[in-house]
Amino acid sequence: MANEQSFSLSCPVPIQNYSQVLMAHGGGGKLMHQLISKMIVPAFRNDLLDSMHDSTVFSLGDSRLAFTTDSYVVRPMFFPGGDLGSLAVHGTVNDLAMSGARPLYLSAGFIIEEGLPMEALWRIVCSMREAAERAEVQIITGDTKVVDKGKGDGLFINTAGIGLVEHQLVIAPGSVQPGDAIVLNGDLGRHGMAIMSAREGLEFESNIHSDSAPLAGSVLALIRAGLDVHCLRDCTRGGLTSVLNEISETSGFTIEIEERLVPVREDVRAACEILGLDPLSVACEGRFVVFLPAAQAPKAIEILNASTVEPGACQIGTVSATRENRVILKSTLGARRILDMPSGEQLPRIC
Amino acid sequence: MANEQSFSLSCPVPIQNYSQVLMAHGGGGKLMHQLISKMIVPAFRNDLLDSMHDSTVFSLGDSRLAFTTDSYVVRPMFFPGGDLGSLAVHGTVNDLAMSGARPLYLSAGFIIEEGLPMEALWRIVCSMREAAERAEVQIITGDTKVVDKGKGDGLFINTAGIGLVEHQLVIAPGSVQPGDAIVLNGDLGRHGMAIMSAREGLEFESNIHSDSAPLAGSVLALIRAGLDVHCLRDCTRGGLTSVLNEISETSGFTIEIEERLVPVREDVRAACEILGLDPLSVACEGRFVVFLPAAQAPKAIEILNASTVEPGACQIGTVSATRENRVILKSTLGARRILDMPSGEQLPRIC
Repeated sequence: MANEQSFSLSCPVPIQNYSQVLMAHGGGGKLMHQLISKMIVPAFRNDLLDSMHDSTVFSLGDSRLAFTTDSYVVRPMFFPGGDLGSLAVHGTVNDLAMSGARPLYLSAGFIIEEGLPMEALWRIVCSMREAAERAEVQIITGDTKVVDKGKGDGLFINTAGIGLVEHQLVIAPGSVQPGDAIVLNGDLGRHGMAIMSAREGLEFESNIHSDSAPLAGSVLALIRAGLDVHCLRDCTRGGLTSVLNEISETSGFTIEIEERLVPVREDVRAACEILGLDPLSVACEGRFVVFLPAAQAPKAIEILNASTVEPGACQIGTVSATRENRVILKSTLGARRILDMPSGEQLPRIC
Repeated sequence: MANEQSFSLSCPVPIQNYSQVLMAHGGGGKLMHQLISKMIVPAFRNDLLDSMHDSTVFSLGDSRLAFTTDSYVVRPMFFPGGDLGSLAVHGTVNDLAMSGARPLYLSAGFIIEEGLPMEALWRIVCSMREAAERAEVQIITGDTKVVDKGKGDGLFINTAGIGLVEHQLVIAPGSVQPGDAIVLNGDLGRHGMAIMSAREGLEFESNIHSDSAPLAGSVLALIRAGLDVHCLRDCTRGGLTSVLNEISETSGFTIEIEERLVPVREDVRAACEILGLDPLSVACEGRFVVFLPAAQAPKAIEILNASTVEPGACQIGTVSATRENRVILKSTLGARRILDMPSGEQLPRIC
């Protein structure tokens, strides 16, 4: 109630310039960042929300818990390498993992459009069940709503997740240090390109499968090995570019990435070129960056590669000592350019 | 993984009879009950989910926590006595309260249709903020998604909630005992009728305001007074009728209600008659039933009336010793009839 006086009842100015919500307000770039940081976070203001992390950590009795939520609206509902159901489990499990939490429980809220084939709902529910088993979480509470035909899009799923933080690390952008290595767990852009290939009218030369996967096993392996993990973030909406810009902004340090070190498959790179997309800004659903002391990078890479069936972890850059909030990409030809936060909606409804 | 063999990959038969999802699958009646109990719960099967309560209680360290989720799709977004935002806070707070939990934290997931006026989003966000303050919960994590124009309906909100159970009671349908009094905290049907009056083309004689309200304060007052609360349930989709049928089914006892004791306002009754609705099956968002030993009913009524600005609590019936799963309504003329679970969709998109 103390904030009552300082809280304006008029819509914030940067938002009001847009009288309506645009697709780009959900795209992971500048407009989405503005909507969240200028409207929603100030309105709900509290110390925990202000942390603006993938999930929020709070203490309860002797336990530290992580809490997160995500709605999943990806189209098409079924795509190479995954579907809406497995994505709704992986995405929330991964948001918990990015706080270094062990995922325990999920909720599942279904918003169904009247006329959805029962068989499609069943396939999605079965996929969620399998994904939850693989990720070792239980779906313990749920809700179903049905909306009129034409007022939804088949199925939207919201999952919220509770995880247990079983270590003393403070895993957050604010813990990032100059000299930290930035380790990525695999090649970029496959989820986004798998979705595009599944959308009508787009066929690529090879079949690109989504990278959608649960990441908690890899993260917990890093932590249990005693590595000094400073920050974790999965490369979802807005891709690696958004993630690095957010961490640079919060930590205040310049981040430097070497283009030749960032793994992108040839078929993904070709597909991105056709669509005029930057693979570094394309959403992944099974890729994340680890910030940790440079000396620990080789061990982290070894652990990441041992914890997955798709090894491909590598160091892609470092945190500079420069106290300037920006991300520098060093090209293969030696040029340095600023990697800006993506401004619009690169790929709508990718997750 | 132990369940793998016993789990059929074909869609369950009672669901398959409907090849598509109907509006009634979200209406709080028989079809919704079937969708949840025959498809979703068996698929996600685990001991916690099986409790099928408004929220799920689990232990963590020395703490007992409640976890719940609900999506809110009510149309229109603004109605007499409330809006989508306050409803999304009250509904989830109330689901936690029905486990006797003190609500602590909420998540908020927004699914926005492209083109939603920014001002409407801002009004909803402000309303959520006010409702959260009143209910003494914090919104600590969130998510925004934007879907294409024509693929949503303005705004859907999902909230999930975490609460703390600070007592030793087992508040659940299974704790209901023969002889228990059934106490209701106020008059029925106002939320549903407020929504109907706000929908185009329907005007009632008086202005009926929604009963939407946070109920945790009332519930915690009952528990702190040392009352032996056996079961709590809020009368949302499907109204009092659904709630009593569910509790009768789970507990196995016959429930007897006296029609003349059930408070329904005259204007609500008249509006229901116009629409051919039974006020006992209309959704409320601020009404709940308490099952407790008959001797404690007067004290419960006193506490409920002291904990609200709208006193109107009363005993409406009792749990019979008959081990038969049904709900009996004793009419004002002395007739007894079975109050069946509502079969279809009485009022779509009421919450």
